[in-house]
Amino acid sequence: MTKIFSSSLRCRLPVLVAIFEVVLLVLYAVFVTYDDSTDAARQTNQTDPLQNSVYHVYPFFVDVQVMIFIGFGCLLAFMKRYGFGGMVFNFLTATFAIQWAVIVQGFFQFYHDGKIHVGVFNLLNAEFACAVVLISFGAILGRTSPIQLLVMALLEVPIFAVTEWAILKYLKINDAGGSIMIHIFACYFGLGVSAVLYRPCLNEGHSKEGTTYQSDILSVMGTLFLWVFWPSFNSSLTLPGDDQHRAIIHTFIGLSSSTLTAFALSALLNRKGKLTMADIQNVTLAGGVTVGASVDMMISPVGAFALGMIGCTACMLGYKYLTPFMAKKLRIQDQCGIHNLHGLTGLISTTAGIICILIASEDTYGPSLYQTFGLNPGEGRSASEQALYQVAALGVSIGVSIAGGLLTGLVLSLPVLAQPPDEFCFDDTLYFEVPEEFDNNVLPTRNRDMVAIKD
Amino acid sequence: MTKIFSSSLRCRLPVLVAIFEVVLLVLYAVFVTYDDSTDAARQTNQTDPLQNSVYHVYPFFVDVQVMIFIGFGCLLAFMKRYGFGGMVFNFLTATFAIQWAVIVQGFFQFYHDGKIHVGVFNLLNAEFACAVVLISFGAILGRTSPIQLLVMALLEVPIFAVTEWAILKYLKINDAGGSIMIHIFACYFGLGVSAVLYRPCLNEGHSKEGTTYQSDILSVMGTLFLWVFWPSFNSSLTLPGDDQHRAIIHTFIGLSSSTLTAFALSALLNRKGKLTMADIQNVTLAGGVTVGASVDMMISPVGAFALGMIGCTACMLGYKYLTPFMAKKLRIQDQCGIHNLHGLTGLISTTAGIICILIASEDTYGPSLYQTFGLNPGEGRSASEQALYQVAALGVSIGVSIAGGLLTGLVLSLPVLAQPPDEFCFDDTLYFEVPEEFDNNVLPTRNRDMVAIKD
Amino acid sequence: MTKIFSSSLRCRLPVLVAIFEVVLLVLYAVFVTYDDSTDAARQTNQTDPLQNSVYHVYPFFVDVQVMIFIGFGCLLAFMKRYGFGGMVFNFLTATFAIQWAVIVQGFFQFYHDGKIHVGVFNLLNAEFACAVVLISFGAILGRTSPIQLLVMALLEVPIFAVTEWAILKYLKINDAGGSIMIHIFACYFGLGVSAVLYRPCLNEGHSKEGTTYQSDILSVMGTLFLWVFWPSFNSSLTLPGDDQHRAIIHTFIGLSSSTLTAFALSALLNRKGKLTMADIQNVTLAGGVTVGASVDMMISPVGAFALGMIGCTACMLGYKYLTPFMAKKLRIQDQCGIHNLHGLTGLISTTAGIICILIASEDTYGPSLYQTFGLNPGEGRSASEQALYQVAALGVSIGVSIAGGLLTGLVLSLPVLAQPPDEFCFDDTLYFEVPEEFDNNVLPTRNRDMVAIKD
Repeated sequence: MTKIFSSSLRCRLPVLVAIFEVVLLVLYAVFVTYDDSTDAARQTNQTDPLQNSVYHVYPFFVDVQVMIFIGFGCLLAFMKRYGFGGMVFNFLTATFAIQWAVIVQGFFQFYHDGKIHVGVFNLLNAEFACAVVLISFGAILGRTSPIQLLVMALLEVPIFAVTEWAILKYLKINDAGGSIMIHIFACYFGLGVSAVLYRPCLNEGHSKEGTTYQSDILSVMGTLFLWVFWPSFNSSLTLPGDDQHRAIIHTFIGLSSSTLTAFALSALLNRKGKLTMADIQNVTLAGGVTVGASVDMMISPVGAFALGMIGCTACMLGYKYLTPFMAKKLRIQDQCGIHNLHGLTGLISTTAGIICILIASEDTYGPSLYQTFGLNPGEGRSASEQALYQVAALGVSIGVSIAGGLLTGLVLSLPVLAQPPDEFCFDDTLYFEVPEEFDNNVLPTRNRDMVAIKD
Repeated sequence: MTKIFSSSLRCRLPVLVAIFEVVLLVLYAVFVTYDDSTDAARQTNQTDPLQNSVYHVYPFFVDVQVMIFIGFGCLLAFMKRYGFGGMVFNFLTATFAIQWAVIVQGFFQFYHDGKIHVGVFNLLNAEFACAVVLISFGAILGRTSPIQLLVMALLEVPIFAVTEWAILKYLKINDAGGSIMIHIFACYFGLGVSAVLYRPCLNEGHSKEGTTYQSDILSVMGTLFLWVFWPSFNSSLTLPGDDQHRAIIHTFIGLSSSTLTAFALSALLNRKGKLTMADIQNVTLAGGVTVGASVDMMISPVGAFALGMIGCTACMLGYKYLTPFMAKKLRIQDQCGIHNLHGLTGLISTTAGIICILIASEDTYGPSLYQTFGLNPGEGRSASEQALYQVAALGVSIGVSIAGGLLTGLVLSLPVLAQPPDEFCFDDTLYFEVPEEFDNNVLPTRNRDMVAIKD
Repeated sequence: MTKIFSSSLRCRLPVLVAIFEVVLLVLYAVFVTYDDSTDAARQTNQTDPLQNSVYHVYPFFVDVQVMIFIGFGCLLAFMKRYGFGGMVFNFLTATFAIQWAVIVQGFFQFYHDGKIHVGVFNLLNAEFACAVVLISFGAILGRTSPIQLLVMALLEVPIFAVTEWAILKYLKINDAGGSIMIHIFACYFGLGVSAVLYRPCLNEGHSKEGTTYQSDILSVMGTLFLWVFWPSFNSSLTLPGDDQHRAIIHTFIGLSSSTLTAFALSALLNRKGKLTMADIQNVTLAGGVTVGASVDMMISPVGAFALGMIGCTACMLGYKYLTPFMAKKLRIQDQCGIHNLHGLTGLISTTAGIICILIASEDTYGPSLYQTFGLNPGEGRSASEQALYQVAALGVSIGVSIAGGLLTGLVLSLPVLAQPPDEFCFDDTLYFEVPEEFDNNVLPTRNRDMVAIKD
């Protein structure tokens, strides 16, 4: 029972948030100002208000908002006793991560004249940093306190932002959908954290880890929101015009073929030939990641279709064989299987992107060849040089994320961060006031008497 | 118990999906290429990227995506033991139907120079073909295996696509919201299938057919998503400008008046004066269909309001009297009442469209008269001729859909398609791994002992 | 049992709705026509269809639709036995309120040449009137019949519309996010109604008033939809360009800081240091209201951040101390705490808006100073005069809303309006057919026998 008391959020959460807010407030006050499209003083009589950048960026921003807060929120609420935690800690962590990323990315990418200049484009960028944190969160879902999650966001956002900045500035890679910079980084960071927070007892399964009929449906809803808006995610940072258009249709086609494949494999790999909801909730989405690194290139519709199938197959086999192996042999527990949905697919995506670069020609791309590949014609990188830069970026992303994840994991192990005791993993009663009939409805019948006695 | 084994998806679903995927892959590889707005090589230095067609089409596409995957998905999840099936089979069927429609519609509408040319506009068109399949699905919900649903999509999409193409090319009708081509076609196709798959035992009611408090709420959420985005559905294929603007406000007004009417009639027709959730979930939407065939015309706001009321009343009376009659006397079971929500309303809509055409004048429409009615001034159709073409299209749509539905129903009766046995209709345990407490939570108390014994 | 019969909707709801519909139908027929962007006859060969106003307004309209029908609907469904009521009465009331507001606001704002001219902009305006009604509804949730709600909308919409019109025309205030005209008006109107409908017995708590695990999750989903789309709400009626852009980022930042603050205070004020779901569902949103009156001004990002924190703190303390005080001492029951989320925050927002006006300078705003503040340079109001007009508007809004609310409350007390008896407050069984297992699932175990006996 002492352990339960030590996980109280009463002092720690308010103190931590108060520190964050004061720091953010000071940084906002000292460093943050409007950018050219939000500053009233920089509009002239010649400015056409309807040409303001907000009209191009905001629709994508809103779609990604839906993915982060509603899509992720529902998807992570799949456990029978951890629906509040999944949805609400996602809300808290995402909100903090975006605000923090506005500042940190601001210093790296939007800083000039002594100020960070913000508009909705900064918020869209910050959402990508936030997505990184939420993917990593998937590895340790249910085993961490909200305090640990906030500290993880505190550390992960700057480590990500500096890596992103270095890759964009020095390596200049093609990665429109963020396979290398978002998915792979987030995956290996999360696994790094998880390795440090290893709990042997969870390998035997945990009585609170299952789902309910309702929580499975809620989680599928989250999947559907992610599925529907994923084309906006993958296309939101591409060049406008045909690049953005291709990113949308490739993502849609890739998701579709991975969805069909996921259903087939789910039935095939189940010994009773039934569908498994966890597969529907996760593996269907593999195509969205797999097309990422080449999503704006001329991969052709059939290329997107094939990538979706390949990524989905790798992801499904990962869930079936790799995740248990990693948990038992490598002592890396991966609660939501992010290594399958973001790691393996990210590696395939990176490879596909490199192949696309190697075979790109002015025949296929016309005069936009250099634009799509982010290269200045004068800069004189050859295709094979660019391929090497992509490999270098992959290496940097994996290396920094593993190191950063391990380091962050060490910090998260500090006892003051209110880590939940083993028996209260995946259990909302630890951090939430729950309705009185919670135990009656959620626990299997045979456990109800025990709860009654315990109370 | 043998019957349960014969409904296993283990071999059949993977084999079927694998065949589909290989066929799609080959067709994509051989026939599908980019269109003018997605092909990098066709952009020149004069191309303004912000004028790319994606910016006009994509917002409507996303809205329709939400309707198909989330709106339909939640709406169909209304049964107490068939929430997974409703939501997840909708996901599977929709994904396949869209990919298949991209190819099939591509051959009919977007084929030139030996290739199908795709952009997001093709995907939007394919979503309409998908909506046709999902509406038909409503007639046989809970009585079919996912294999049967995929085969239905396989057959219905080409039958629809050829009908659509013939009507658009030769009859040139006005049907912006798809009342004739989408709703009526889907309805009679679904009823044709259902007639062949008739199960006498279901007319006495089925113990698993009810709802739960949670499933009713989930289903209303689906209704609300459909309701909110329906104006995008009805307006997405109209001419840009005032036509599209009118389609939006007419749909909104029509839905509003049908919603008010649905509440009134629901209380009136219930002997205790209470509201029935099935009415709220379905009948409220009748106005969206009823305004369809004339949605971009100058029907005036009051016209949209009146159409919503009339369509809703017909739909409600259909649920109350016609559906039971059809099930018992005509041996046509209509699980979700698609004949009320899409058939009766579609017929009213068609009639209203014809009246609008007959009374249209250059006074009301100005110089856009010929445009709105899709007619070339030189073609010289009179209003009454156009009305006859509308009637002809209605006849074609009904005739082809009934024939196609009956034929498809015969195919679906093949034993190899894993049709569920009567006692496992409306039951997720047949095709899904369900959480262990599923039976405890969902079955009424008096059945729990039986389940325990059966296990 | 007589009371239950007297709350039947069988005659009253259909009669009331029928009257509404006939009146709306006549008003639509006589007075409503198309505006310049929806009337086909007013388009010329020079009209560029892609410049139609629908493309600027519709995206915001759809976002606000999601907030009203899905966001509010889910948020209000938080009670264990009143999920149908919360979601479905919201649907009914919103639908009627918008249609009614199109007419009433039409007469005040869009009436010329003997007609009300409508396009999607009118619908957007009507949604704001609808939001007023739904906020007021929050004060009396679960204690009112759908008939009372419709009558409330019938009275509140015109009282709001005339106030809005008078303030916009004569006082010309700055209130882009509607803090004064929407939130404060709605709040004090709702409290006025609630004061008249006071039920002493509810102050002791009501056995049906709690939540379930599922209803809490559903309600958080509603919060997330409101949170995600709130920037669209606050910016939809601002000037296009940088004003709209600022409104979006200020709202996002304000919501973020209020969310962080809400989590901190929720843990701090709970004696076990746990998070309370009602706080997550409501207090997180306080920042959206607090930035409202100055949302398009040059308040700077840090200003938005600070406003979110301040508004959230006031809102949280209001829930903790003011709501119980008002219920017990002032005999004003506020079911959803609208005085905290809309009243207190609205007052802070108004104050902030006045400060911004007083310190506005051409240095900060450039030549757009007069535009943003809605003032004609020739009109010659000084900043302090404008501040006085803001105060006057606040006074008018509070005064009219309290008076209107009290009056409306008196009308709602008429016995014919089917007010629920005390024991059937917060209970869907009164107005809905509920699934048979409803009582088994929702009631705590110890009450089940009683229900069984009662049946």
